[in-house]
Formats: sequence, C-alpha cells, structure tokens
Amino acid sequence: MLSIGIDLGGTNIVAAVVNEEYKMLATAKTPTNTPRSAEEIFDDIAKVCNEAMEKAGVTIADISSVGMGTPGTVNDDGVIEFANNLGFNNVPAKDMIKERLGDIPVFIANDANCAALGEAYAGCGNGSKNFVAVTLGTGVGSGIIAEGKLVTGVNAAGGECGHMVIMVDGEECTCGRKGCWEAYASATALINQTKAAMAEYPDSVMHKIAAEEGKVSGRTAFDAMRKGDIAGINVVNNYIKYVACGLINLVNALQPEIICIGGGICNEGDTLMKPLGKFVQAERYSIHSKIQTKIMKAELGNDAGIIGAALLGSID
Amino acid sequence: MLSIGIDLGGTNIVAAVVNEEYKMLATAKTPTNTPRSAEEIFDDIAKVCNEAMEKAGVTIADISSVGMGTPGTVNDDGVIEFANNLGFNNVPAKDMIKERLGDIPVFIANDANCAALGEAYAGCGNGSKNFVAVTLGTGVGSGIIAEGKLVTGVNAAGGECGHMVIMVDGEECTCGRKGCWEAYASATALINQTKAAMAEYPDSVMHKIAAEEGKVSGRTAFDAMRKGDIAGINVVNNYIKYVACGLINLVNALQPEIICIGGGICNEGDTLMKPLGKFVQAERYSIHSKIQTKIMKAELGNDAGIIGAALLGSID
Repeated sequence: MLSIGIDLGGTNIVAAVVNEEYKMLATAKTPTNTPRSAEEIFDDIAKVCNEAMEKAGVTIADISSVGMGTPGTVNDDGVIEFANNLGFNNVPAKDMIKERLGDIPVFIANDANCAALGEAYAGCGNGSKNFVAVTLGTGVGSGIIAEGKLVTGVNAAGGECGHMVIMVDGEECTCGRKGCWEAYASATALINQTKAAMAEYPDSVMHKIAAEEGKVSGRTAFDAMRKGDIAGINVVNNYIKYVACGLINLVNALQPEIICIGGGICNEGDTLMKPLGKFVQAERYSIHSKIQTKIMKAELGNDAGIIGAALLGSID
Repeated sequence: MLSIGIDLGGTNIVAAVVNEEYKMLATAKTPTNTPRSAEEIFDDIAKVCNEAMEKAGVTIADISSVGMGTPGTVNDDGVIEFANNLGFNNVPAKDMIKERLGDIPVFIANDANCAALGEAYAGCGNGSKNFVAVTLGTGVGSGIIAEGKLVTGVNAAGGECGHMVIMVDGEECTCGRKGCWEAYASATALINQTKAAMAEYPDSVMHKIAAEEGKVSGRTAFDAMRKGDIAGINVVNNYIKYVACGLINLVNALQPEIICIGGGICNEGDTLMKPLGKFVQAERYSIHSKIQTKIMKAELGNDAGIIGAALLGSID
C-alpha cells in the first residue's frame, strides 16, 4: 500500500506519496505563509496532499495512512499542543486532516522524530532498531528510536537531546537553560564561536574568508583550518569536542546501533566525522562491549522527515 | 507462576522466589567472596536459588523463569562481557545457571536495569511504561524504560546516565571522562563537595558534625543546613542543582512519566525532593505539555533489583 507523508514546516508545507520501499513517488509543496489561521494552513495541507496524489496518479482509496511531522509538541490524540513558529496552541491536527481528506488513519508526530524514523528505516539506519538522529542546524534537533520504538515519552515531547546541559552555568540557550548542548554544537553556536575567535585574533585568515563570503558561516572556521590557520583550527577542534561530548552522552545512555548526524555541517564529511568517531571510541563507557555505536552521516536530507512521517502508520 | 530473581553483587548473592504480585515469598543469601572463579560463584548462585525454593516450599517445576541482575555489561546471549568488581570477562552466565538449575528460561541483565524494572512495575512506578530509575550512591546508576521496554541498546550496555557529561572539562570521573553527572551528583561527590567546603570554611558547623559522627558523610552538609550553617546551605544547594541538571536532561531526552530517585541520600526526603521538583518544573523543555514528569522517591530499596530480575522473563 501507499501512504502520504507531510512535512509541515515554518517555511513550507511538503507532501509526498510514498511506497512500501520508502520511495517518494510524487511530491507537492506550498509556502506555509505564517502567521495565518490553522484552518487556512490545514486547507493547504489537504491541497498539497491532493496534488501529490494527482501527480502520482492515485486517489485516497489507494492510501493506507497519512502521517505528518510538525514542529513543537504533539500529544497522543494528534493535537499539536504548542508550536511556537506556527503560532499553534492546541490545534487538533489529526482531526483537521481527517475532516479534509476523509476517514483515513492519520498520525501526527514531532518533525525531528519523523526525520529520525526516516533515516532509521530508509536512510543510513537500514532498518536499525536502536538509532538516534541528530541534526546540527540552527538548533540541535534529535529523535530517538530504542528497541524498535520511537521514544516520545509520556507527553510526545521526548527526544529533545539538544536541550541536555553539557556545561552547568554555561552559554545561555534559547530554551531558558544555560549550557545546553545546542548552545555549543548547533551551527548557530559554531558561528558564534567563530566570531568570538575572529574578535580575539584580528590576523586570522577567517576575516578574509568571511569577507569573501559576505558573512561568517558554519564553514568559515573549517575553511580557515584547511589553510592552516591556528585560530580556525582551535575553533574547529573545540566545536568537534562539544559535538562529541553530547554524542558520547547519548551512547552511554542509550547505546544505539547508529547515531546519524545531519545538517549543513555534515557537508564537511570526514573532516567532521573522523574526529567525532575517535572521541566516541575513546570515551564511551561500553569500552569492553563487542558491539559499538557507529557514527554515520545522514543520507536523506530534508526527505527524511517526509518519509518518516509516511512511515508513522506502519510502525508500532 | 512463580519466578526466581537473583541479585549478584560484589558483596552478596541474594535469590528470592517471587510471585505474580511481585512479592518475595522467600529469600536466601550468601557472600560473593570475590575474587574466586566464576564456576564457584555460580555453584553458590544455584545453592541460594535452591535454598530460596526450599524455604518457599516449592521446586524448580513451580518456577517459570529465572532472572539475574549483575554488575557490568551483559550481551543478548546472556554472557557477562565484563564486570570489573567480579573479575568477570565473557562469563556465559545464562548457560552456567541452566547447567546448574536445569532447562528453564534464564534471563541476565545489568543490575541497575533490573532495579529500574522492579521500581517501575512493583515500586513507585505502579506499572509505568516510561520510567527512569536513578540511584545516587557511590556512583550514579540508572535504568531506562521507554514505551514499555527496558532500554539496553544494541549491546545491552545502555542506561549509564551517570556517565553523561554535565560539565565539559569538569571533575574527573572514574570512567575516564571529565565532568560526568556521577562526578557531581553521587554520594561520593557530595562528600567531596562537603570536604572542600569544610577546608574553605574552618568555622562551619560541618566540622563539629563530622567529628561527632566520626566521618564526613552524605548527611553532614544536610545536617549543617538544618542548623542554619551558610557553608552547609551552599553545599546542599549546589549539590541539588547538579542532581537536578541531570534529571532535567533526562526529562528533555526521554519525557518519562516518572523519574524515581534511590540511594541513601533519599532519606533526606522532602529536603531533597521538593527543590529537585522545583528545578525540573522551571527548566523542562516541555513546559507547555499537559503531562509532566513526576520526580519520586524509590520505594523498594535493595529489593528492587531482585524483583526486577524475577520480572525479566515476564516482560517483553
């Protein structure tokens, strides 16, 4: 059977018809255009679903379930309890989709959790039952699959590993805590760390690189490192240490088969992944275990969330 | 049906016959007497099992399964891969118990995970499917139950939340990392924090309390606080902040229904539990969720591990 996966984002709504081999047969997309009412947004969600079905040459009768990933927290009744960037407060997403598409099984989950499911089943996880997906982006997003189940906790708000403190009384985090992993390991944090090092080292090649690019980005320090710039090397080494710290925390708590890393920073490839792997190998608590967590690069990019959403109806 | 739970500890081996209502009908105990061979230790394990059955007036025919909690890491084949304080390296625990007790289902798990199961099903969890047990003792032990399953990970070494770093480059931990939660939140850490404050404040009443007790203990700073001693108050407040930091990390990652806290420090009761609850309430990421994690005191003490071990055969 086919299913529909929807990625409801702050910028775009994307829907896809997905087959049993986790392939997207057709997609459709429209801007989310926030702020506007939930009614209007869900009308557009139904519209992109219908467009995707039309492109795939199927009807709702061919669809076994609809799954949607959304920012924010979702409860077991399919209600989006709170999603800051959509302006949603207790929006009954599941019912609103059913009203528009008909009486079909509908599943709603957090977008980071959907992305984790997508990577675990259709991406680098290759069906792994113990899997954590971490996205190093504006923030640090994550989703946990343990013993074959998505760990959403008692209130469907689980998997916020970016908001685990790695430095008591450390950098302020957007969540109100101090010292969260996100405040050290996100792309935003890397840019802040790069800017701080540039202020301290006016002779660093990072100034030239940033001027050429027109901005300081997550690549600036990595590019400087490749030119042998000491300040750049230090920024990168410290950043990788912070990323590794959170990864090892997750290994020790959950012992996943795979931790998959996504987000733009991953384009650095082995420059990032190799030292991360070394840190994890050196500090994991399970040093005597035969089986060790693999640190892998995410494979599906933005498609992970859509494919994962489409999978919500077919996993336990 | 009845089952047998075994707690293989560094000091004692305890076995109990446990009924379907999670009650221990009879127990037997013998010293572990390390170091000695695994063969000898498993002979004694079989002996205490037989003693417990005899006391309960039952035979092995009345027993549906045998479960054992052990320190260290256990793989899916029931082999204890490594247990430092028992001197065990790749000991086939499951097979060795079967050889001695007959062809009965045998399950082996880490002792902290067994204790978590015991508290979740028979203790303060009251059957909770999303549950974390944390023990503040010599170290910080923990066990995770997510979506009804014990989270042991891909190598049965999961649940080591005490070895999640909360302070990058912080205090040295016994595991080789720096800044682990255990190095700040264990009873051992509290004693170190107390001693450091005593060295800094020679006029603190902690000196008198420790002299009367003959040692600095996990209670010293709490007792000083109750006498209005500023240095004692600061030690307690900082310690509670460290404990809370790790708890909030677990809430954000796993959103358990309950986190249960065990270990001697829990005897402080509300003095510990109330401020912990306040910290969690203030800093949890899921501030908009209707359902929130409860922080509770463990109920079963040392029995949690034995009852949890007995349960291994009856849970998924």
